[in-house]
Parts: sequence; C-alpha cells; structure tokens
Amino acid sequence: MEKIKEMKPDMSVTFEAIISQVSIGKTNGKNKRNYLNLILEDQSGEIDAKWWSPTDHDCQVCVQGAVVKGSGDVISYNDSIQMKVAKLEVLEVTDEERMKFLPSAPLDVEVMMKEINDTISNMQSKALRDITRSLIHDHRASFMSYPAATRNHHDFINGLLYHTYCMLKIAKGIADVYGNLNNDLLFAGVILHDLGKVKELSGAITPHYTAEGNLLGHISIGHTMIKEKADQLGYHGEEVVLLEHLVLAHHGKNEFGSPVLPQVKEAEILYLVDNIDARMAMFDKAYEGLAPGETSKRIFALENRTLYRPESQ
Amino acid sequence: MEKIKEMKPDMSVTFEAIISQVSIGKTNGKNKRNYLNLILEDQSGEIDAKWWSPTDHDCQVCVQGAVVKGSGDVISYNDSIQMKVAKLEVLEVTDEERMKFLPSAPLDVEVMMKEINDTISNMQSKALRDITRSLIHDHRASFMSYPAATRNHHDFINGLLYHTYCMLKIAKGIADVYGNLNNDLLFAGVILHDLGKVKELSGAITPHYTAEGNLLGHISIGHTMIKEKADQLGYHGEEVVLLEHLVLAHHGKNEFGSPVLPQVKEAEILYLVDNIDARMAMFDKAYEGLAPGETSKRIFALENRTLYRPESQ
Amino acid sequence: MEKIKEMKPDMSVTFEAIISQVSIGKTNGKNKRNYLNLILEDQSGEIDAKWWSPTDHDCQVCVQGAVVKGSGDVISYNDSIQMKVAKLEVLEVTDEERMKFLPSAPLDVEVMMKEINDTISNMQSKALRDITRSLIHDHRASFMSYPAATRNHHDFINGLLYHTYCMLKIAKGIADVYGNLNNDLLFAGVILHDLGKVKELSGAITPHYTAEGNLLGHISIGHTMIKEKADQLGYHGEEVVLLEHLVLAHHGKNEFGSPVLPQVKEAEILYLVDNIDARMAMFDKAYEGLAPGETSKRIFALENRTLYRPESQ
Amino acid sequence: MEKIKEMKPDMSVTFEAIISQVSIGKTNGKNKRNYLNLILEDQSGEIDAKWWSPTDHDCQVCVQGAVVKGSGDVISYNDSIQMKVAKLEVLEVTDEERMKFLPSAPLDVEVMMKEINDTISNMQSKALRDITRSLIHDHRASFMSYPAATRNHHDFINGLLYHTYCMLKIAKGIADVYGNLNNDLLFAGVILHDLGKVKELSGAITPHYTAEGNLLGHISIGHTMIKEKADQLGYHGEEVVLLEHLVLAHHGKNEFGSPVLPQVKEAEILYLVDNIDARMAMFDKAYEGLAPGETSKRIFALENRTLYRPESQ
Amino acid sequence: MEKIKEMKPDMSVTFEAIISQVSIGKTNGKNKRNYLNLILEDQSGEIDAKWWSPTDHDCQVCVQGAVVKGSGDVISYNDSIQMKVAKLEVLEVTDEERMKFLPSAPLDVEVMMKEINDTISNMQSKALRDITRSLIHDHRASFMSYPAATRNHHDFINGLLYHTYCMLKIAKGIADVYGNLNNDLLFAGVILHDLGKVKELSGAITPHYTAEGNLLGHISIGHTMIKEKADQLGYHGEEVVLLEHLVLAHHGKNEFGSPVLPQVKEAEILYLVDNIDARMAMFDKAYEGLAPGETSKRIFALENRTLYRPESQ
Amino acid sequence: MEKIKEMKPDMSVTFEAIISQVSIGKTNGKNKRNYLNLILEDQSGEIDAKWWSPTDHDCQVCVQGAVVKGSGDVISYNDSIQMKVAKLEVLEVTDEERMKFLPSAPLDVEVMMKEINDTISNMQSKALRDITRSLIHDHRASFMSYPAATRNHHDFINGLLYHTYCMLKIAKGIADVYGNLNNDLLFAGVILHDLGKVKELSGAITPHYTAEGNLLGHISIGHTMIKEKADQLGYHGEEVVLLEHLVLAHHGKNEFGSPVLPQVKEAEILYLVDNIDARMAMFDKAYEGLAPGETSKRIFALENRTLYRPESQ
Repeated sequence: MEKIKEMKPDMSVTFEAIISQVSIGKTNGKNKRNYLNLILEDQSGEIDAKWWSPTDHDCQVCVQGAVVKGSGDVISYNDSIQMKVAKLEVLEVTDEERMKFLPSAPLDVEVMMKEINDTISNMQSKALRDITRSLIHDHRASFMSYPAATRNHHDFINGLLYHTYCMLKIAKGIADVYGNLNNDLLFAGVILHDLGKVKELSGAITPHYTAEGNLLGHISIGHTMIKEKADQLGYHGEEVVLLEHLVLAHHGKNEFGSPVLPQVKEAEILYLVDNIDARMAMFDKAYEGLAPGETSKRIFALENRTLYRPESQ
Repeated sequence: MEKIKEMKPDMSVTFEAIISQVSIGKTNGKNKRNYLNLILEDQSGEIDAKWWSPTDHDCQVCVQGAVVKGSGDVISYNDSIQMKVAKLEVLEVTDEERMKFLPSAPLDVEVMMKEINDTISNMQSKALRDITRSLIHDHRASFMSYPAATRNHHDFINGLLYHTYCMLKIAKGIADVYGNLNNDLLFAGVILHDLGKVKELSGAITPHYTAEGNLLGHISIGHTMIKEKADQLGYHGEEVVLLEHLVLAHHGKNEFGSPVLPQVKEAEILYLVDNIDARMAMFDKAYEGLAPGETSKRIFALENRTLYRPESQ
Repeated sequence: MEKIKEMKPDMSVTFEAIISQVSIGKTNGKNKRNYLNLILEDQSGEIDAKWWSPTDHDCQVCVQGAVVKGSGDVISYNDSIQMKVAKLEVLEVTDEERMKFLPSAPLDVEVMMKEINDTISNMQSKALRDITRSLIHDHRASFMSYPAATRNHHDFINGLLYHTYCMLKIAKGIADVYGNLNNDLLFAGVILHDLGKVKELSGAITPHYTAEGNLLGHISIGHTMIKEKADQLGYHGEEVVLLEHLVLAHHGKNEFGSPVLPQVKEAEILYLVDNIDARMAMFDKAYEGLAPGETSKRIFALENRTLYRPESQ
Repeated sequence: MEKIKEMKPDMSVTFEAIISQVSIGKTNGKNKRNYLNLILEDQSGEIDAKWWSPTDHDCQVCVQGAVVKGSGDVISYNDSIQMKVAKLEVLEVTDEERMKFLPSAPLDVEVMMKEINDTISNMQSKALRDITRSLIHDHRASFMSYPAATRNHHDFINGLLYHTYCMLKIAKGIADVYGNLNNDLLFAGVILHDLGKVKELSGAITPHYTAEGNLLGHISIGHTMIKEKADQLGYHGEEVVLLEHLVLAHHGKNEFGSPVLPQVKEAEILYLVDNIDARMAMFDKAYEGLAPGETSKRIFALENRTLYRPESQ
Repeated sequence: MEKIKEMKPDMSVTFEAIISQVSIGKTNGKNKRNYLNLILEDQSGEIDAKWWSPTDHDCQVCVQGAVVKGSGDVISYNDSIQMKVAKLEVLEVTDEERMKFLPSAPLDVEVMMKEINDTISNMQSKALRDITRSLIHDHRASFMSYPAATRNHHDFINGLLYHTYCMLKIAKGIADVYGNLNNDLLFAGVILHDLGKVKELSGAITPHYTAEGNLLGHISIGHTMIKEKADQLGYHGEEVVLLEHLVLAHHGKNEFGSPVLPQVKEAEILYLVDNIDARMAMFDKAYEGLAPGETSKRIFALENRTLYRPESQ
Repeated sequence: MEKIKEMKPDMSVTFEAIISQVSIGKTNGKNKRNYLNLILEDQSGEIDAKWWSPTDHDCQVCVQGAVVKGSGDVISYNDSIQMKVAKLEVLEVTDEERMKFLPSAPLDVEVMMKEINDTISNMQSKALRDITRSLIHDHRASFMSYPAATRNHHDFINGLLYHTYCMLKIAKGIADVYGNLNNDLLFAGVILHDLGKVKELSGAITPHYTAEGNLLGHISIGHTMIKEKADQLGYHGEEVVLLEHLVLAHHGKNEFGSPVLPQVKEAEILYLVDNIDARMAMFDKAYEGLAPGETSKRIFALENRTLYRPESQ
C-alpha cells in the first residue's frame, strides 16, 4: 500500500485514505454518466482523483469524511498529478480511526492533557479549580479532538488542545517574569478561553460552523457555559466574574468580536498570548509553501502583509 | 415651600429636595471649617447650594441621594444663582418617595407596563411568551424604575421602561409595513434587549456602573439571563438561539460592543429601532438647552455634530 | 405559450420575453459563425439561451431590452437548464408593454401614488406642499417607473416609488410615537429624498448611471431641483433650507456621500428610515437564494455579514 | 496715539481700536457693579483691557465689532500686559473703515482682483467665461472682503480672495508642467470653488457660520449658485456639469464633506491645490508663535502633529 | 519589419521585440509537446503570441526580458489578435539596446538630467549641494533608467527620473508663490526622495522588489544612504537632519509608510507634490483605456473611484 | 533629615531632594517680589514647595534637575500638603548621585546588564554578536541609565534597560515553546530595538524629546546606527538586513510608526513582546492610583479603556 506522498506518475497503487472533498460530475459525449471528483487525503498528503465508473450506490456512500480503500493509476495532468481510480470501497471505521487519516497536532495528546490537568490541580482557588476541571471533564472528548478553527490556523485534529497547550506554556513564562499576577485566573482563562468552540464547530472531522456558532459565536457560548457551571457548583463573586471577563475579552478589541475590552492584567495577557500563538501558526502555514529566500503573496488574515522566509530557515 | 425652578435671587425659601451631588470643602482663613457643596434637585430643576456651617453629623448624613428639607437664601453668583443654606435636615423616606424628587419618564408607568404585558400575552410562541414573561416578572421592580443609561439619553427614573415602550411601538409600526416578520421574536427581543442593565447599573437612583457591569456589559449579562431562564424552563432550539442572537446583536456593530452582527431581519430591526429611540432622546436633550434658531455645540455622542433647533420648534 | 419558470428539460416551448443580456460569440470549428448568448426574462424568471444560427440582421436587432417572441427546445446543461432557440423575432412594443416583462414592485402603482398624493394634500405648510407637489408632477412618469438603484435593493420597475412608499408608512408610524415632529417637513423629505435619481439613472429599463449621475450624484442633483423649484415658486426662508438640508443629509454620514450630517430631528429620521427600508430589501434579496436553516455567503453591501434564514421563515 | 504693539507696562496711552471680544462681569465686594472685559485689536496686535466703570449705555454700545477711541493705563498682569481703560467712546464708521482695524491679506486687493479678472478674460470657453465672470460680478464685494474661514487658516479680511489668488498661481504652474489639462475648467473651478462661503459666513467682520451655512455647507450652496447661473445664462451640457463637479468634489474625500470624489484630472488638481494653500497657511500660523528651533504643541487641524520651526527660518 | 501596433489579422509579419512575459504550456492530444505562451512588446505596443513548436533549447533561452527576432502569422482570436510564431531567435543585446524595446518617459533623459544638475549647482547650502550631487553621481546610471514603481504609475524606463523632474518643476512654481521657503532643502528633498528605489527594485528592465526592498522599504533605504553620505562628507547638524526628515516623511502619513509626519513646510510640500505627480500619472494611465465620454471601472489605487474622461479630452 | 514620604503637616523638616519642576511667580501686593514654585522629589515621593524669598541668584541656580539641601515647614493646603521653604542651597553632585533622587527600575542594573551581556556572548552568529556587542558598548552609559519614554511607561531611571531585560526574558520563554526560531536574530532585535532612544531623548534626567528625536524618531535613528555599525565592521547580507528589519518593524503597524510590517517570525515576536511589556507597565502605573475593587478613569494610551483593580490584588 502506498502513502499518497509517495505516489508518482505512471505508478499503479493501492491505498487507504479519507475523502476530504467530493463532487459528482457528468461525462461529456452521448451517454452522459455520473463520475466522481475526489480529493483523497492521508496523513502524508492529498491527491486529486477521478472515478469514471461509480455505481449509483458508490455515489451515495462516497461522502465527505468517508474512509476508503482502493487501487488506481497515477497520471500527470497539467502541472500536477491525478489518480484514475480503478476500484474503491468504503470502510466501516470508528471516528478515532477516521482521524488517523487527517493531519493532527505535532505533540502527543496525553502529554498535552497532562499539562492541562496538572495546571488545574495546582490551582489554589477552589472555585477556579472546580469550574475549570468540571468543564474540561464535561467536554473532554471534544476538547481533545476539535480543531481551533476551520482555516487560517490550528485547523487540524487536536488543534484546540494544541493551541491551548502552547498558550499555557507561554503564559507560564510571562507569569514568571512579572511575579505579581493572579496565576490561577490567568491559567483558568487560557484553558477555557476557546471552549465555546466545541459548540461553535460541528465536529472534529471536516468541521463547519453550526447555526448556533454563527448566531452566537464561541465567545458568548463559552461565557454562558462558565456562568451556568459556576451557578451549578454554587460559586459566585469576583473570581467568577473575572473568569467570565477573561473569556469575553479574549479577542482584545470590539472589532474582533469581544463585547468588552480587557480591564485586568490577566485578561490583557490572555489576549496577547492568544495572538502570539495564532500568528506563529499563521506564519508557519505561510512558510510551508515558500522556499528559503522567497516572499509570499499578500495574506489577508495577517493584515494583508507579504511574509519572507529567510534563506537560513 | 418653593419649587427649585421658581427660586430667584434675593428670595428666602423653604424646600424639599434630593441631594444629587455633594462634596466637602474647607473654608479659607484662620479657623478652617468644613462646609458642604451641594447640588439640590427636585422634579422642577436643580440649584447649587453652599452650607457654611454643618456639624460633623450633618456632613455624614448629607450623602448623595439623601432627601432633605430646609430653608435658605437665594443669591446671584457669577451668571447663575446659588442658595445659601440656613437650615437642613435629612428626611427618612422610602425609595419610592425618593424617586419623586428625580426626573422620570413623561408617560405613566402603568400605561407602559400594560403595553408590555399585552404584547407578551399575545405572543403565539409558547417558548418566547414564557421566557419573556418570566424574566420581566423576576425583575419587575428594577425593569419599571431603572434608567436606561447614566447619561446621554434616558438617564431618568423609568428610563429603561420608557425606552422599551417607545421601541415597541415603533417596531409594531414597522412590522405592519412589511408583514413577513416573526413578530413574536421581534417583540420579545425589544422587551428583553436591555434587561441586563438591571445588573449593569447599581440602582434606579443616582446609578453608577457596577464592577460586574463594567467587566461583562449588559449585553452579555442579559444573554446569560435568557439562556439560564430558557434552560430552567426547558426550552431549547432555534427560537431560543434566535432570541439570544437578538440580544447579542442589538448594538449592530462589533465596535459598539455586539459580539455578533445581526444575521436575521428581526435582529437588524431591533438594532435600528434601538438607534432611532436613542437618537431622538439625544436630540431632545440637546434641544432643551437651545433657543429656536440656535445651533448647539458639538455633541460627542452624536458623531461630534452640531444640532440646529428650527425657529418653529 | 410557456412562462419561463415552467420550462423543464426536454420540453419544446414557445415564449415571449425580454432580452436582459446579450453577447455575440464565435462557433468553434472550421467555419466560424456568429451565435448569440442570451438571457431571456419574463416576470416569472429568467433562462440562459443560445441561438446558434442568427442572421446578421438578427444580431443587430437582438439588443438588450428588446422584447422577443420565439420557440425552442429546453435542455439540461451542467446543473441548470438552457434553451436552444429555434426561432426568434423582435416585437415592436411601447415602453409600458416592455416593463411588463421585468420584475416590478409587489404593490399596485395607483395605491402607492394615492398615498403619496394624499400625504402631499394634507400638508399644512403651503410652501412644502407646493414644492413637493410640483416636483412630483414634473417628474411623474419617471418617479412612478424608475428603480431606486441598479443593484443591491429596489432594482426593479417602480422601485423608487415602492421605496418611497414604504419609507412614508414607517415615518408616519414614528411620527405618531413621538408627536413633536414637523410632519410636513419629514414627509416632504421622504417623498423627495431620492428624486435626483430620475437624472442619476438613465431610465426605468436596464438602467445605468449617467455621466451627470456619476459626476454629481443624486443627492446634489436633487438638491438643485428643490432649490430651483423653490426659487421659481417664490418660496424662501427656513422651511426651504430645512427641506434642502433633509435631502443633502439623507445618507446620514459624510462617508456615504452626504455633504452635511443630519442636524434636525426630521433629517435624522429620514436617514434612519431610508436605512431600514434599504436593509429590509437587502435581507429579502439575500433570503430569496437561501433555504430555511441555511446561512448565506458574505454580503459586501451588508458590512460583509453572513445572513441566516431561520427554519421557520 | 499708540499702536497696540507698542504699548508697554506703565505707559499712559490713547488709542483707536476695534472690539474683537467683549463680556460683562460683576465686581466683587459690597456694591457689585458691571464692568467690561474687552479684547481690543488694531492691525498691529491685540491687548486685554478692563473697563471698571462703564455706564449702562456703554455696556450696550460696546459690542463685538465696534470701533472705539479712548485712553488708559497699561499695567503688567501675570505674565502679560493689560490695559485699565480710563475713557472709551464708540465711533461711527463705515464697514470699510472698520476693516482697517482687522488683520488682512498681505497682498493688495486690486493686484489680486486683476489676476482673477485677467484669468477670466483669457478663458476660451464662452460658457465658463460668462458663468465665472457673472458670479464674481454678482458677489464682488463679499468675494473681495470675506475671510476663507473663521479659524485655522485665512481667517482674516480678504482671506477668501487671497486664498483663491494663491491657488490660481499654483494651478497655473501645474498646468504648465503637464500641458494636457483643460485650463479654462481648472481656473474657473479655482475661482469659484469657495464662492458659497459668501452665504456660509455672516460677513467679513467677526464672521460666524449662518444657519444656512451649517445646514447646507458652502459646497452645496456654491453648487446651486453655479447651476442656477448656468440655467439663467442658458448654458447646459458637459462643461457646466464638469464645473459643478469640480466645486462638489473640491474637498477630495467624502469624509471632508465632498458628496462626490474627483473623477477628472482638473477636479483632482483643484482639491490638491486647495490642500497645499490651506496647509501652508496653517504652518505659517503655527510658526508665528514659535521661536527658531522650537517645536509646537500638537495641532488638531494638522492631524495632531507637532511642527518644528528650523533654526534658520 | 512590422511594428506591433501595425499588425492586423491575416498579415504575415517579421518583427523585433522583447519578451515581456512567457510561460510553457502542454499541447492537448496524444503526443503532448511543450509550447510557449508569449507576450511580445516593442515601443509601439504588445501582442499575445503562441509558438507551437519550440525546441527544448528555445524554451530555455526565451526568458522574460530576452530580445527576439522572428516571423509569424497574425490571426484574430476572440475579440483580439494573436500571433502564430513561425520562427524565433534570441538576439544578444546590451541593456541599453534592450531598453529601446520598452516604454519610456516622454521627455529626453538629457533634458531632465540637466534640470536636476542645474538645480543642484544653484544650491547655496554647501552641505545640501555636496550631499545631493554626490549621491546622484554614485547612482547615476540607475537614477536615469529605473522606473519609479512596478505598477500603478511611472512604471516605465526613466520613470524615476521623469517623476523627479516633474515634481521639481512643480515645487519651483510653489516656491515662487510663497517666497519664504528653504528652497535648497525643498529641492534636495525632491531630488533624493525616491533614491532608495535604486535598491528597492531589482533593475530597470522587468523590475521586481528585492528582498531588501520588501524588508526595509525605499524610505528607510534612502534615509541610510543620506545619513551615511553626510557622515562620509563630514556634514552634521540641522540641515542634514532636515534632509533626512524630508525623505522619511515624504509619504505624508504613517499608514502610507512614513515613520514620521511632515513637521516643516518643505516636508509637507514634498509630500503634496509627490502626491500630485503620482495621481496625474494614474489618471493618465486610466484615461489611456477610455474613450471620450466613458467612465472607468473602480480603480483601487485611487481610493476605489471611477474616473471620467470628458468628451473634449 | 526627613524623607519626603514621611513629611506631615506642622513638621519642621530638613531634606535633600531634586528639583523636578520649577517656575518663578510674582507675589501680590504693592512690592511685587519673585518667588519660586517648586516640586521637590526624592526616591520616596514628591512635594509641592514655595520659597517666598529667594535671591536673584537663587532663582538662577534652582533649575530643573538641581539637587538641593534645605529646611522648611510643612503645612496643609487644600487637600494636600505643601512645604514653606526656609533655607535652600544647591549641591554640586555628579549625574550618578543626581539619579539617586529619582525613581528607578526595581531590579539591580548589574543583574540586568549581566543578562544582556551573557545573551550576546552566547550568540552563534558572529555578525549579530559583534554588531550587538559593539553598539551596546558604544552607548553603554546611556543604555544603562535612560528611561524608555517620557511618560506612559518605563519613564524612570534605567527604564530602557529594564524594559529590554523583561522583554528578553519573555522572548526566551517563547523561543523555548516553539523551538524553530532564529534565536540570535530575535535576541539581538530585542536588545537593540529601542537603542535609538539614546538620541531621541535628551538624557536620563528630566528627559525631553530632542529636535532630532522628533524629526526622525527612534526607529529610524536606531536603524541607521545598526546599518552604519554593520558597514563599519564589514558585515553585509541577509542577517544584517533582517536585523535592520526587526528594528524598523518593531512597532508592528504603520500607524504606530513602523515604515514596514513584520515579515519574519522573529520580527512579529519582537513587536508582540514589546507590546506585552509596555502594557504590563501601563497597567501597573494605572493600578498604583487605584484601591482594590476600584475602576480607573479612561486611559488614552490603552485605547481609552477603564481598568479594574480586583479586590484581591
């Protein structure tokens, strides 16, 4: 069985992959038949594929997110390569198996979860410790598998966890430098800031924004999750309000969707650290497509800048 | 007893009024004593006052919001008038009595509440009817007495109710013109849009922003009130999400503090109608200080415009 | 004869329609001949059409806006349908007949004009009544047939009148709520605010912006129309200046092309009501293409928002 | 008789001056009497003055803009000087005489008018020549005496003419460099661009904005003046529309109050040249108060910049 | 030999031209071969060309910027014309010869350089004269041949010199009007303001931005060139700092890339004159594609305006 | 001798302090004499002082920044205290001694310099190591003593060093998290990013902006310092250009005065870390004046936000 990255023109290959996009086309000519335009993906990469002779049943089951096994011939087409599918069969898999065909975070999930859990256990504030632990517990499976976005950055399996983990490490470094912050508040804010995404997005695999996600946004969704959890556990008062504030303010500016601006130091740091990690991920994404010494096209999400990849990186 | 509006230089007067501002000063000269700078207010207007010989106890009890009875002499000072207090005594009053010394809405509270309640009773959606009725019931006293803001517009007793009432009337007119709106949703949104202000502000009398109000804002506070009420009553689904959306989106733009923009017609109308009523109130406030044919100074809250009061108005 | 909306693949049809777009193409192959790409439209909808064998004369007369009668075969092509024209003939029609093939306002012209005229007749200010009546009289035919724009909203026959009518109804509702407005001024402003469009646009049918329209804009064109009419009728003074002001200020902000900002209440309301009606029309336009529960693409004219069409609408 | 600039502490002086500001104060002490706070101005400068013993009649006639003759003693007060008025009498003067007490343009009016008139006479377009000549003729007295603004720049007698003259000279230099401009159009635009100010401002002496000026603005006022003049003289067509366009577009951006943006080269140059002359005047005004090598405070009208006056200037 | 502008369908032509764009395509059909998509340019214009049968060596040498000689047949294709290349051969040429195939400034280089040099010689400040002369001397060849930009305006051979020359003429006209400027400073600023472009761009022919150009920008590059030259020649003090300031501030606003705003009059004029010349060039560029009486599409670099080309120009 | 913080009303005190502000006043009454308004400061705090009987010589030597020794009586005045100076004498001190009377960074200079120097020594790039070391060596005294600004944040002795030190610590934490950065470049950028401030500001004691500082800004000044140092040491190429880029881009946005935007990851991090440290310092400054649970006034430098100091901090 070949990995997609290893496929070259004129090879006959067998493969297991996930269908990350699919559409049905009509052949030209007298007897128009349906065919399938596919993008097949495994963790090594992706390839365009055409299946010229699917049955009606094939067309029904080859949906986005289906894991398939098959064989075909690789040809060169325009400047890239394409697979002519010979045989294709949909496999019954669990979601966990399905995720193995998709890109994921570069760190082990257990390592990251341990960092999160240890941080929670070390909180001295019972209220913040209980609220954070209980929310992460309630949404553990989603928190561990969801991406942090559908594009731009952290748009891969475990992206939400990886983003949270990196931010937590940076926040700890900053807390060490200044020494006068409410660390429990800051770390609880980091861990919970994007939790609303488990309802804003439809799932870990081929995610899209839900209607609720579009109409309310992850900031307000996450806010009510914290408020309801605090009420349920019987916690009130300034600590809870500050945690709500951190989540509401974490986009830093009204025009980025925060209804209030950061008014305490921990909220300001949460916003700035979120920004650092998002931007590093966007730089890395842009660098992927650049050769050393090359300048990128303008990148909308980075204020329309061009980026430069140095010769030495 | 004289109304403040009727006081003229060289009158000796008796009065009942509320202390709307107070500070303690020190007299010049050898034997420095405390004196009180006061702004006294009744429903007819307000007047600066100096009390040159209060006791220490007087200084303690003459706080902002106290209702007082007293006598004094009115003098002219610079271009305006001032009262030299002769005698002053703090009265024990209920909050209801206290409010009678403050400006309030130009309509009867019962008339306005009837409009609100009738609108709720006529809603065909059980979910929206129950949620709206229950929230207004829970916060009835505050909803009926609070201002809608601490300055700029509707900054008077019953201001929140009056603002809601006017908006509801306009929204009904608009609903009649188009005929294809979800009226229940629109009217529930109008009635609840500013309910979070009952927690954002400290009270009906001499209100200020609470810490919770500053840190979370009435939009997010109101949002969690609705979400928790819906969960408590067992309502879920699109209707609830849309009502949450209307409240979150009612400032219309991110830069005005809405985390999401209006995405359904009823949300857009709610925002626009809120805007109409706020602006009419700001115009009226600016006109108060203008003679017919006069142009105002620049008004920050109205995009730094000058306003003109026509000769005929 | 078939309505366009009723045409289905594999039907042979006869039709009467207007050509709303047309371009000439060249066939492939050895003997390149001209063919016509057409969009045919009647009040029920529109359809792409190809005419493979027009004569040179056909190519000359099948211009945008021509009303045609013909027959053809409907085929399916890609995901939509297309007509293969068999026969086509241009009809001699009046402009009034031509408009019958184009979408128009959902209300009867006479009903709308009656509302306008009654409103004018009820004005107590002789100056405002005479100026408004005379201007509407001078431009009656255009005012009744023009669209209010070439795209985005009210871009259909009678669009200008329909937009004016809806605004007038809303303005009356608002005037009722507040009770202290100069209704004559407000209603005259509503009726005349977009009158400059009769010179800014080229006509009721397949309109485009005139050079004068681009160089001066309908706000300034309309302003001079009012000023010249007032001078001609011998009216001067504040009422006239205020009416000029309402028209100049009706876009509400400098960046939307108003040279002055609303400085009286009636000008502010005119701006806000214009906004309401424009936005409702843009929402309706966006909803047309959406299924219940679907979210739209980003809409540039609505601040790049996505809109949501609720399940229940 | 002393010039104001020559007055020094401890001098007894006689003077003729204009009252550029005046307010009435009340003396302290038992027997409160009215006194006058004055700013007296002649072409050499201005001085604060107090008149401690005016009669009621004096208070009535000593209005802003009055020309007075008197005597007094100069004293030093805080860091500056002040005059203690001994005697003061209002003179009957013509407006022409009155203007002699106010700052005016540094060039002779006749020299400037000759440049304007010669430019008009040399226009090859009869339409532009007639319209421009007739409008300047109609408003000759105001055009020659009005300032171009009430503050910031060209806020002095003949300021409008001087501003127009300087712009005309620069525009001619630019026309020479490029050689492919419609010079008649450009020069007519320069001469008429601010003519609406003769109605926007109340007069040449101590001017303020009129109600019409605030409600319509000099751009729209000037626009209707041109349109009505063209109609009256029977000129229509592109040349007239372009001249209207130049006046409407001369602020260059919507946010500066132009309803349309420059769409032809001559309109763009008019805007840019207007900008140059305004900014040079603002720099000169700021330099007046600066020593060589000194940096100014932030200047709001110049984008909040600080300016630097070089050692050598 | 035919000029490109003279080529018409059905002609067989010979030509000399420069390759301004080139890409390699693959033919359809069984035996896929490489072919060349070319844009050929001479000073008269440009034409699309296809070469269906190049050798591998031809594909290697037909690079962007190559000067070629050849023959072919002109055909009409869609709405424009295309050349089918029969023979093509790359010529060995000097860069000077190569530039003759590209559009260049409409004025003679020697005439423009004389104006620059005379201006330098007439400077009374030894420091400014020496610095300016030495920098122009060091970069003489580039200064004379480079464009001023890669698109939008002055994107042709000698564009930098032509832009500098036109600005110098306008600046002199302005200096004449005001009479109180530091002319040496202003003219030195004009001459040197864009000199950093000789490092920001890669060359005179088919220029692109260098990595250094993207990372530092011509403003900062030019600034260090002046500072290092002044240090090398031993000049210090205010004159040098002001010249540095003029170059740093010449984009006029932070958002256009100037790190400081103009703080002296000469800096302000430099910015405004740069703006005038850039905008005139952009108008001319837009007018090229317009017929008299036609309106352009929206032009991004001119604030998204449409431009109008008058009937008479 | 008393520390200023310990002074209370009715004490007679002796003191040593620095004059941080001074102005000369005139006494009222017949025989006007000069007196001195002083603000005296030591590291414990500051106090208003009046010296009613200075000699002319005293007035000359009591300048801003002078260190004085004296005695006086402390009185209460309005709501604060004031010293009535009895005797005052200017001391001859070195600048080092003078700084002891001013607030300074909360960390030891040697500790901070060791961190900087160790970081430089550990750089693997010879070019970056040599350039950074040599520049810090050249400006060692200023780099160690200057503030980082005249107000808002780090406006104290060693402020520049302290700001650089904190940023370096945070940058190291971030570098650890990502692991794929050019650490030498990032750390060199941090150390040198504000070095231009040693020329932008006038000195460590009572600093103001120099003319050069205003006209060029510390970004461009620092840029030329690096470029000239690199040229002097013979280093060229990408590493140097990237270091220049980091300094030019460190304000992150054009509108904050960076002529280019960050285009490599290290530049982005430098900007974000600069931002973190500046904002933490502004929060701390704002918190100083707030009691726990109190909300601040709007703070212009923090986007006009109000800040909240939690009960527990």
